[in-house]
Amino acid sequence: MNVSVTRKVRFCAGHRYWRVDWTPEQNREVFGACANENGHGHNYTLEVTVSGPVDPQTGMVINLGDLDRLIHQLVIDRIDHRNLNLDVPEMAGRIPTTEVLADFIWNILARPGGLTRQLEEVRVYEADDLWASRRG
Amino acid sequence: MNVSVTRKVRFCAGHRYWRVDWTPEQNREVFGACANENGHGHNYTLEVTVSGPVDPQTGMVINLGDLDRLIHQLVIDRIDHRNLNLDVPEMAGRIPTTEVLADFIWNILARPGGLTRQLEEVRVYEADDLWASRRG
Amino acid sequence: MNVSVTRKVRFCAGHRYWRVDWTPEQNREVFGACANENGHGHNYTLEVTVSGPVDPQTGMVINLGDLDRLIHQLVIDRIDHRNLNLDVPEMAGRIPTTEVLADFIWNILARPGGLTRQLEEVRVYEADDLWASRRG
Amino acid sequence: MNVSVTRKVRFCAGHRYWRVDWTPEQNREVFGACANENGHGHNYTLEVTVSGPVDPQTGMVINLGDLDRLIHQLVIDRIDHRNLNLDVPEMAGRIPTTEVLADFIWNILARPGGLTRQLEEVRVYEADDLWASRRG
Amino acid sequence: MNVSVTRKVRFCAGHRYWRVDWTPEQNREVFGACANENGHGHNYTLEVTVSGPVDPQTGMVINLGDLDRLIHQLVIDRIDHRNLNLDVPEMAGRIPTTEVLADFIWNILARPGGLTRQLEEVRVYEADDLWASRRG
Amino acid sequence: MNVSVTRKVRFCAGHRYWRVDWTPEQNREVFGACANENGHGHNYTLEVTVSGPVDPQTGMVINLGDLDRLIHQLVIDRIDHRNLNLDVPEMAGRIPTTEVLADFIWNILARPGGLTRQLEEVRVYEADDLWASRRG
Repeated sequence: MNVSVTRKVRFCAGHRYWRVDWTPEQNREVFGACANENGHGHNYTLEVTVSGPVDPQTGMVINLGDLDRLIHQLVIDRIDHRNLNLDVPEMAGRIPTTEVLADFIWNILARPGGLTRQLEEVRVYEADDLWASRRG
Repeated sequence: MNVSVTRKVRFCAGHRYWRVDWTPEQNREVFGACANENGHGHNYTLEVTVSGPVDPQTGMVINLGDLDRLIHQLVIDRIDHRNLNLDVPEMAGRIPTTEVLADFIWNILARPGGLTRQLEEVRVYEADDLWASRRG
Repeated sequence: MNVSVTRKVRFCAGHRYWRVDWTPEQNREVFGACANENGHGHNYTLEVTVSGPVDPQTGMVINLGDLDRLIHQLVIDRIDHRNLNLDVPEMAGRIPTTEVLADFIWNILARPGGLTRQLEEVRVYEADDLWASRRG
Repeated sequence: MNVSVTRKVRFCAGHRYWRVDWTPEQNREVFGACANENGHGHNYTLEVTVSGPVDPQTGMVINLGDLDRLIHQLVIDRIDHRNLNLDVPEMAGRIPTTEVLADFIWNILARPGGLTRQLEEVRVYEADDLWASRRG
Repeated sequence: MNVSVTRKVRFCAGHRYWRVDWTPEQNREVFGACANENGHGHNYTLEVTVSGPVDPQTGMVINLGDLDRLIHQLVIDRIDHRNLNLDVPEMAGRIPTTEVLADFIWNILARPGGLTRQLEEVRVYEADDLWASRRG
Repeated sequence: MNVSVTRKVRFCAGHRYWRVDWTPEQNREVFGACANENGHGHNYTLEVTVSGPVDPQTGMVINLGDLDRLIHQLVIDRIDHRNLNLDVPEMAGRIPTTEVLADFIWNILARPGGLTRQLEEVRVYEADDLWASRRG
């Protein structure tokens, strides 16, 4: 039996796309309005998908209380209401695109003490019309 | 050519998470507010995905009239506006989680007389922020 | 200046439409599947709209922390994951329609110690395609 | 005949709630995580409602091309992908709450050269669960 | 007590904006792509709001079965999967904008045999980002 | 690292399901209301998913400006506000179902000069409750 369960959570954050080793013109050409000097931000949606056998006693792939606690402690508490360029050390020097954010959150959640091998997909929506997905 | 088509339908139902072989404390600890004595309920969303060759005459993987009839006769008519613990014999003794419900609906739809090998995925949303998926 | 602010929250609950002073046939005719014996339930959405002058220091009609605390203490903690017929004393004997629920929540929130005269509208969605509104 | 038409557009922006004449503790107490040092941001939704007689020749309250041009020139071009505290001179010194933003946009759109008396409502969503409305 | 209840239904239809007494250039200038020769179409959403006293026996402003029947018989059966220019006699010669459609549906539903004085608002969405409202 | 990025865009179009080599009765039986003489239409949603390595300099699988330009030039400009039966030569003689539309768009986007091997999925929603997906 191939069953997965997905939890969706929301957070908001600020960011800016800017490479210090590029000229302003180059930044503007590649990153457009995302290169604006004082940054902007988004309401992000995070979907975490976990798969594996269903526990016959609880009917669950994972206890939702445990899943919610992991997502909040490992992810939300570190990035919600933050500036992704300035407040998240592991993101320093990386352009905070949706793809990079999905990869960053995957790496946090897949670590020992996290969801490890149960983690199937991390999907991050930067807006209603743009999202990135990271799979194992 | 790898094409699938998905139909989404809605239903509502009541449920409660409770194991008679556990103490009330154990039920409360594992199931939280879902163990409340008189139950509660949800608006569920069901997505049924069917795949296979596209009929060159109709442009369809499956006739939508047929798909809708199967979904309503086999699934909706048996669980909509029902209590999943008390009114659905096949669910008796199982905790009616989203995972179990997805598995239950998959088994009904995959039977002979149903969608059999065309069935690709059954996805059940218990809420906007929680869903389960069962694949073949 | 005429400004309002609205907070949306979600809860889920079970219910049944049934009048003990009516025959089963009468209940079935008027209430349809909502009269099913063991009840069912919904994911409800509650929108609370508050209006009044904007505080020039905070830029707020009401502090959101205060609004959230009132909504949760007065409403959500009493009806979320509950059966509206059996677990909410003030609803006893009333048919728990969306209209009645909106009126019930309005009366709780408009009381002294609640939002009193700032309260402008209470809107309750029983489903994506059905909602009721209570205004002052 | 009482008819209105509403156009919805999206923009994103960064902001921070902070009063320089308050202590950090006071800012933190009233504004919570919105007072975080480096700011954050949101995907905003703006709904502009215009009412008036329907032109019998075009069937329109207002030509949508004209409405879209006004909304983009007067509002979106000035705040999209911007920091509301630093990049919008008229917002300087005001806390950029949803209420203040709705009021700010109303004042821009209601000016001569804008929608003037046709403007009925400006509604700004900071998130799916929070919005403010400004009416005439 | 001021209570209303709203039902949302969906339909789809085709249409074209074109005045035969205008030149093609004039049609193109005012109506843009909506003047394209072979027409196009939309998924429409219709929200019908009814208000009045709540029946103390049923807890309802109006019986939903009756409301649904009226909406389908008077509106949906006449415009769903139709071309608004060619298949709806009462729309002949009118530009089928969202405003005109809301007004047309209001007039049908407010007639004797319809919702008459209980009808409070008819709202028609032509798309997620454009809608019109007709009130009494 | 397995990362994909998805862009969602909207368009609207008209269509009709009708086979000239079938009798009217046969068309009506198989296609239902979609066979109505003057056609109807929909608001479609198109999701284009692209996968591949993340550029370490930009943090992107593909530059969104480039992706948007391709989608608009190759797809939207040819079908938006059009009649799929009459205005799109490559669709002539095919029933414009959601499955056929997804396959048609896949073939356009996968061509040399398009997204070629980066294209992972094309998903087309004809309505909120019906969609088709084409994968490589």
